[in-house]
Amino acid sequence: MPLDLSRLHLGCPYYPEHWPEARWADDARWMRGIGLTVTRMAEFAWALLEPSEDRFDFAWLDRAVDVFAAEGFQILLGTPTAAPPIWLSRRYPETLPIDDQGRRRNVGGRRHYCPNSPTYRTLSRRIARAMGERYGGRPEIVGWQIDNEFGGSGSARCYCEHCVTSFRTWLIERYSTLDALNTAWGTDFWSQHYADWSEIGAPILTNNAANPAQTLDYARFMSDSFVRFQRLQIEALREVVPAEHVFTTNFMGLFTQLDSFELAQDLDWASWDSYPTGNVFRWGAQTRNPGDLVPPYAFDVGDPIITGLAHDLTRGLKQAPFWVMEQQAGHINWESVNTLIRPGAIRLWTWHALAHGANGIVYFRERAALPAQEQYHSGLLKHDGTPDLGYREVSALAPERALMEAVAAHPPRARVALRYSYDDLWALQIAPHRKDFIYQRLIFVWYAALKHLGVDVDLVPPGAALDAYAVVIAPTAHLADAAEAAGLEAFARAGGAVIVGVRSGAKTTENAFTAQPLPGVLGGLVGANVSQWGALPDGVTFELTGELPGLAEPGAGFWVEALEPLPVADIRVLAAYAEGPWAGHSALTEHTLGQGRALYVGWYPRQAQAEAVLRRVLPMHNVPIETDLPPGLVLNRRGPYTMLLNFTDWPLSATVAGETFVVPGRDIVVRRMADARDDR
Amino acid sequence: MPLDLSRLHLGCPYYPEHWPEARWADDARWMRGIGLTVTRMAEFAWALLEPSEDRFDFAWLDRAVDVFAAEGFQILLGTPTAAPPIWLSRRYPETLPIDDQGRRRNVGGRRHYCPNSPTYRTLSRRIARAMGERYGGRPEIVGWQIDNEFGGSGSARCYCEHCVTSFRTWLIERYSTLDALNTAWGTDFWSQHYADWSEIGAPILTNNAANPAQTLDYARFMSDSFVRFQRLQIEALREVVPAEHVFTTNFMGLFTQLDSFELAQDLDWASWDSYPTGNVFRWGAQTRNPGDLVPPYAFDVGDPIITGLAHDLTRGLKQAPFWVMEQQAGHINWESVNTLIRPGAIRLWTWHALAHGANGIVYFRERAALPAQEQYHSGLLKHDGTPDLGYREVSALAPERALMEAVAAHPPRARVALRYSYDDLWALQIAPHRKDFIYQRLIFVWYAALKHLGVDVDLVPPGAALDAYAVVIAPTAHLADAAEAAGLEAFARAGGAVIVGVRSGAKTTENAFTAQPLPGVLGGLVGANVSQWGALPDGVTFELTGELPGLAEPGAGFWVEALEPLPVADIRVLAAYAEGPWAGHSALTEHTLGQGRALYVGWYPRQAQAEAVLRRVLPMHNVPIETDLPPGLVLNRRGPYTMLLNFTDWPLSATVAGETFVVPGRDIVVRRMADARDDR
Amino acid sequence: MPLDLSRLHLGCPYYPEHWPEARWADDARWMRGIGLTVTRMAEFAWALLEPSEDRFDFAWLDRAVDVFAAEGFQILLGTPTAAPPIWLSRRYPETLPIDDQGRRRNVGGRRHYCPNSPTYRTLSRRIARAMGERYGGRPEIVGWQIDNEFGGSGSARCYCEHCVTSFRTWLIERYSTLDALNTAWGTDFWSQHYADWSEIGAPILTNNAANPAQTLDYARFMSDSFVRFQRLQIEALREVVPAEHVFTTNFMGLFTQLDSFELAQDLDWASWDSYPTGNVFRWGAQTRNPGDLVPPYAFDVGDPIITGLAHDLTRGLKQAPFWVMEQQAGHINWESVNTLIRPGAIRLWTWHALAHGANGIVYFRERAALPAQEQYHSGLLKHDGTPDLGYREVSALAPERALMEAVAAHPPRARVALRYSYDDLWALQIAPHRKDFIYQRLIFVWYAALKHLGVDVDLVPPGAALDAYAVVIAPTAHLADAAEAAGLEAFARAGGAVIVGVRSGAKTTENAFTAQPLPGVLGGLVGANVSQWGALPDGVTFELTGELPGLAEPGAGFWVEALEPLPVADIRVLAAYAEGPWAGHSALTEHTLGQGRALYVGWYPRQAQAEAVLRRVLPMHNVPIETDLPPGLVLNRRGPYTMLLNFTDWPLSATVAGETFVVPGRDIVVRRMADARDDR
Repeated sequence: MPLDLSRLHLGCPYYPEHWPEARWADDARWMRGIGLTVTRMAEFAWALLEPSEDRFDFAWLDRAVDVFAAEGFQILLGTPTAAPPIWLSRRYPETLPIDDQGRRRNVGGRRHYCPNSPTYRTLSRRIARAMGERYGGRPEIVGWQIDNEFGGSGSARCYCEHCVTSFRTWLIERYSTLDALNTAWGTDFWSQHYADWSEIGAPILTNNAANPAQTLDYARFMSDSFVRFQRLQIEALREVVPAEHVFTTNFMGLFTQLDSFELAQDLDWASWDSYPTGNVFRWGAQTRNPGDLVPPYAFDVGDPIITGLAHDLTRGLKQAPFWVMEQQAGHINWESVNTLIRPGAIRLWTWHALAHGANGIVYFRERAALPAQEQYHSGLLKHDGTPDLGYREVSALAPERALMEAVAAHPPRARVALRYSYDDLWALQIAPHRKDFIYQRLIFVWYAALKHLGVDVDLVPPGAALDAYAVVIAPTAHLADAAEAAGLEAFARAGGAVIVGVRSGAKTTENAFTAQPLPGVLGGLVGANVSQWGALPDGVTFELTGELPGLAEPGAGFWVEALEPLPVADIRVLAAYAEGPWAGHSALTEHTLGQGRALYVGWYPRQAQAEAVLRRVLPMHNVPIETDLPPGLVLNRRGPYTMLLNFTDWPLSATVAGETFVVPGRDIVVRRMADARDDR
Repeated sequence: MPLDLSRLHLGCPYYPEHWPEARWADDARWMRGIGLTVTRMAEFAWALLEPSEDRFDFAWLDRAVDVFAAEGFQILLGTPTAAPPIWLSRRYPETLPIDDQGRRRNVGGRRHYCPNSPTYRTLSRRIARAMGERYGGRPEIVGWQIDNEFGGSGSARCYCEHCVTSFRTWLIERYSTLDALNTAWGTDFWSQHYADWSEIGAPILTNNAANPAQTLDYARFMSDSFVRFQRLQIEALREVVPAEHVFTTNFMGLFTQLDSFELAQDLDWASWDSYPTGNVFRWGAQTRNPGDLVPPYAFDVGDPIITGLAHDLTRGLKQAPFWVMEQQAGHINWESVNTLIRPGAIRLWTWHALAHGANGIVYFRERAALPAQEQYHSGLLKHDGTPDLGYREVSALAPERALMEAVAAHPPRARVALRYSYDDLWALQIAPHRKDFIYQRLIFVWYAALKHLGVDVDLVPPGAALDAYAVVIAPTAHLADAAEAAGLEAFARAGGAVIVGVRSGAKTTENAFTAQPLPGVLGGLVGANVSQWGALPDGVTFELTGELPGLAEPGAGFWVEALEPLPVADIRVLAAYAEGPWAGHSALTEHTLGQGRALYVGWYPRQAQAEAVLRRVLPMHNVPIETDLPPGLVLNRRGPYTMLLNFTDWPLSATVAGETFVVPGRDIVVRRMADARDDR
Repeated sequence: MPLDLSRLHLGCPYYPEHWPEARWADDARWMRGIGLTVTRMAEFAWALLEPSEDRFDFAWLDRAVDVFAAEGFQILLGTPTAAPPIWLSRRYPETLPIDDQGRRRNVGGRRHYCPNSPTYRTLSRRIARAMGERYGGRPEIVGWQIDNEFGGSGSARCYCEHCVTSFRTWLIERYSTLDALNTAWGTDFWSQHYADWSEIGAPILTNNAANPAQTLDYARFMSDSFVRFQRLQIEALREVVPAEHVFTTNFMGLFTQLDSFELAQDLDWASWDSYPTGNVFRWGAQTRNPGDLVPPYAFDVGDPIITGLAHDLTRGLKQAPFWVMEQQAGHINWESVNTLIRPGAIRLWTWHALAHGANGIVYFRERAALPAQEQYHSGLLKHDGTPDLGYREVSALAPERALMEAVAAHPPRARVALRYSYDDLWALQIAPHRKDFIYQRLIFVWYAALKHLGVDVDLVPPGAALDAYAVVIAPTAHLADAAEAAGLEAFARAGGAVIVGVRSGAKTTENAFTAQPLPGVLGGLVGANVSQWGALPDGVTFELTGELPGLAEPGAGFWVEALEPLPVADIRVLAAYAEGPWAGHSALTEHTLGQGRALYVGWYPRQAQAEAVLRRVLPMHNVPIETDLPPGLVLNRRGPYTMLLNFTDWPLSATVAGETFVVPGRDIVVRRMADARDDR
């Protein structure tokens, strides 16, 4: 039976190689007993599947598949390329990556491979195909996870000779001629002119900064390298497995170094590994604004807005229900402080994933490992094999399964799109111009504002089709090109609202500054020019005047731009600077085009300021908002179901769609609404 | 005359190579004049002793020995292997170590050698033996310091080809078969399976963490490498010097990277280099808990509890009187702030060392050096050759010498043992699981508590004989094995008290997690299981209830464990959690076994909490405690002598054994007690 | 017409290679139109001037010169050696430098060359000479900038094989014999004795510190290497260009890694690149004392005292009017926070430079670059080619030009000399002994005190002629030698005042500690010995007593020395320690010699304490002081002109020379004084 991605699945990976074979049947039994029907196997087992080059041993995995098949599991296999065997790295040391300090990385961890190594590509294709040949015919095998957490463990960038050679090929494809490259990169600056493709190298170990166009291209190239590496395996497998097999890889949420939209192109569905308590530490600094506290209730449940953003980004990769391929089910082991988990957390995470559009939730992992690197990571069972918190909470979901399945039957739909661009992210990493000008943090300001207003949102890449949306927000459209500008303008003219923010239109695709007045190609959309722009240091803000409630405080700081409305009829100034060198100049404009409008927010807003803008725009475009949600109470809708999740330890109440809800601490309320809004 | 290690000796190193020969006699004379009778020479003089390979020049050292012999000095010679000559490193660059970034280290500092280099071993043996042959027959030469500060200057770990080869040999000895190694290391995880010994390398430059068993084994291997390197020299010397020559090396107190217990095995006595003002900076962060202030009086005397711990650890290496081979005698030069030293400090340090069991105190150094790396380090004389503070304070000890010698005649004895394990320390460095979970800091909590109660304490390695003790404390017995567990249980049954703390019994010798219920092999001793455990973030604590005064505040934080008494008769719950997910579960249990008892402290205690436990247990086992010692006033006993040392600048008083003492600021009171307790 | 360095010039660099040729004439026209008469070209254009080895293309530059000549510009050409072409580095990879981690640096930034590479030297000489041959005959070419920002972008130190070889030659010249070197470096310490010149290497990657004499010599050697590299080019050019051509390089103000005095020897005039807002971040930590706030008005104008110090240091390089070769004219791009610039800043910087002795101010740059590394750096025009703030402010200078030219006609003269020594700076970097004991910060204490008192000051190297001065201040004369000591004593005896501070006379030229009583060779000048010295930790100070108003607070901390007056008649104790171990010992002495005096300030003073000393000494030596200058108001005199610059945004007033001035916020008042003081 093929895997039905439109329905709910709960699961747990299983590592037969970690446990005595005598335990396997027991493990399959209790896993099935608590309601799990899916498992994932083999994604780190290359050394056991191919103990020496071109000699395969599938017998043990056959038996493990037998055991889980007997319990009725649907099985995903992982291609094991995230962990090359020792024999491989020792025999072919050129497959080991070179880091940005010029050092050859070593065996002994994971992800120590170069995706552009011809040898590694050949051997990866071979093991993937061999697995496909072996298991393609088994009905309980339903799909594949390619590799594991592409880019993780510091592996997203390699600077080895193979990469440099491939980079040159990539550049030839992109620029065709050296003249074009020299122009695009601006190599007349600092005497960097290339006279031969072979002169081009990787942008590391430079004195002073490397060329920003080269650096951005190298980021794109490395991202493409993993896309090609993933595709190599998918193609190898598709040749030998049934057509109904489905393919995914497990993404890493807000991980920034690879373009997840590109990686998702070749996949049937997207999944990610969700570890909320670790992500508070890992992503907190790149999402929350300085001075905004991590919510005090977050120590053992994570920040639900950060988790939600990662869910929504993953859903956005295919604009379809996704999976949590690894769902935290106890404490983790890889952050600076790995806090203990209190009761209720795992149920909350499960519902939270479902509410954001997850149709598969795979709890990591069956039992805490005894030896090796992840022995401090918990599982559904403790080290000693007895049930841990995760086991108990997953078991207790049984009475709620019917409701969960009902929710899962509805694909999530949002009326607001939030533009998310890896090119922009990388370009701003290369030149933040102001410390802490972090792309994801600017995205987060708007995302958090939307969630505080109870709005569901889709994350979309630049150039995505927009017809399903009422409002599109681009916190910055930094590298927007003319085609995207035209698309946004058409969207607005057709009745949509577009909100764009600072630094939009500032850069070309080649990461050069536009020679047009700012906001560059977006000038027609915005109906105003940015005459002045720049950064303010901490503690300095310029007062704002304007009519929008809640906009003025705390003034404009961090990054500010002065706007000059173009001599067009339909421009309205919603806020202006009340002090500073640009006193009297516009700070927020609204341009009416056709049936819709475009707003330009001319400073880096605080969340409350973003909310002020949204409170004006969303209702005008028939997107309902809630204004009564307390922090820690998260609202999501999926089909006719409205879900309120309380991440605090105390009861919270809110009036939603005119109805008052009281949600106990660390609990969930799900309501099928009479006037369900999914039939737009 | 052999060196009598049972009596007091004061001394000072002498560097004849740093001064014109015309000064030597004068220097010997004033050194003798202020009461010094021991000197140390030549430990950095290899280039002068062997100016080119296999060509020796001992004439200058002969004359220096003559000069100090004429003044009646007993002389220790240092083998000069801590500072290879330039010619050696240039001719044999493979003797230079490789650091954890893969870089070959350079000449020009010190300790730039690999202890596993066959060439370096050969040349080291040769210079040691040549010195032994030359000086074995001179009666004023009484012993040897092997090398200097093993592991210092970043030299404890080398990752060169020789080390990797030796590591493989070491592993073959340890595991015999690759199957055993693969099982012990858990190489089925992340595809790390080794098919040939030659595939094994050093755990550096990995993507993601290296295997923890491999990492721990590498730490043990490097420690053993220095043990073997030291032994090579001792054996070379013993072949040619008189049997009464004694051997030491100068340890570095709380230095963590080598197993000092192992290194001490081959030595006749232990010594260390004590620099209290530097150690406040160097070790403060790994001993004091965050938020515990460095004592305000410490800026020029150091923290006496930190210094005391290092004294006691050094004494514990041989469970016998030790030496301070380098005693700070003015300001130092190697910390971020090298504070000036005020009068009284050097006398205080001298008495402090003596009180902790030092029988030799060697003041570093004769005169501040003029050129080279240590020119900002003071000596007994200033740079210009006139007396500095150290000279004056050592001179002023004359009237106290008789009392000092009387104290020194009594070997220190303690009734409390504090378990100290380098394996545990390293395992927790590899996987702290919670930032700042530092082994030495946990040790320090208990050590500081004991000293605040005026209790003398021996530091003992895992598995040490315990019959001399009434109470044994293992703040954690993290890697305890079954034999040690049996020993502790026997000790308790025979009437002793055992106190163990969090994370005990969690790990196997191979640094894997135990598959038994926690505390693993210690379950029988403790009489309870740890059902849940984990870390809490800063600022989160769980309230405790219980009957022990002083235990409840400030609750349990940082690391907490829930205890479940086993269904045995003699378990008593002394504290339980009053809130949080484990409310009602036990936090502190006391298990009565035979004539004694075992307590499990189920959270990471603050010092006051450790004291609360000690105030219950020590009196029950007839270890007297003092409850009136103010901070800065340190109590030590040695034989019949009770010594109170005031490290503050103001008078302090305390009632000890029923008698009230008033100790002036930065002064010492020594009392021969009527009821001296050393005749147990 | 030769460049008249005694008159005012304003200018702007021009990068023809960055813009379409069609724009050049327009650009020349508007530049001339706003009053600019000087431009600089070609300093990063090697790849275009020599597209492949030994094939030159000057045609484009000929045409650019034609265009600017037609507008009447005087043109400086930059030799382009700061940015080697890609073909050069690829063909001769040995020209790429090795950093202190042993890594070969890469192409793609700038300054990636080794100044000791024979190949790079040959190729640099060739391009310089070729440019000289091409442009020597064109009358509008008036001078040369050699290279660009020597030492910048991390390029001041190279550790490649060529450098090591050259270092050995340099050492042979310095020490003649290995015996002399071994003695000077103290290689008997730690067995570092060199038996052959070829054994000597670079002081990197050592275990523990490298030898301090070697490290200081390596710093001197690298500085000399750039001096030689600059000279190579100047000599090549002088052979072929007219004698009236003038030579400079653009220094970097307070940059520490090269000896600017040495580099300036071969130049006709000095210039530097002034970026005040970046320098607040870049140099704030090495100038302002911890706890002293960066002035709150500084966010977009920089700290005028820091800027002033850099101006004065640059003027001191030739003791003559200097240029600002790159004057910030908008926001910059290279700091952590690149703040926006508010109106008035560029005019203020222009006048500030002029007031400190700048006769040339070249605004960087013509227009913000579109591609490559500096695209976020502003120019006089915006990216879109329209005027930016800098354009407007430079234009607005027109009415003030006559006054500016009048001021520029007067060479600045100061009666106070502040000694500045790169040897001292480096020696204290090598051995600060106390965190934050930074040479430039100690200089800054005195410089800020002088500026707060409205005093003009010359920065002079050790051993400079002093006859023009009334007062000489050496915040430390750390490595002063006997000749300098004699010069200072002669200066004092002839009626001058010498103020010296802590750590003076402590070191020999070879960076060893003096064996004489402190202050070593300065004992005769000071008339007192330093009997004790050392560092105090943060928060500890010793109270002072004494008669000087303002001296006592906040006591003496950080670094303190106890002084013992020599048994000479004319010593007076101005301050003494009132507490601490040195209570009663002198802290500040004044020694009367002949017609003058010498003061020793025995602790690291706070600015207010330095001012207290200056308020005593300056009036005694007829140097007028102002006591009414508020922070942010800067006073400078140039010839008969008194200039008051207000760097705040609010009006400030002060009484100067008996007359009250009110200066509006961010404005300037210039007054021709009746009693102009420049005719001393």
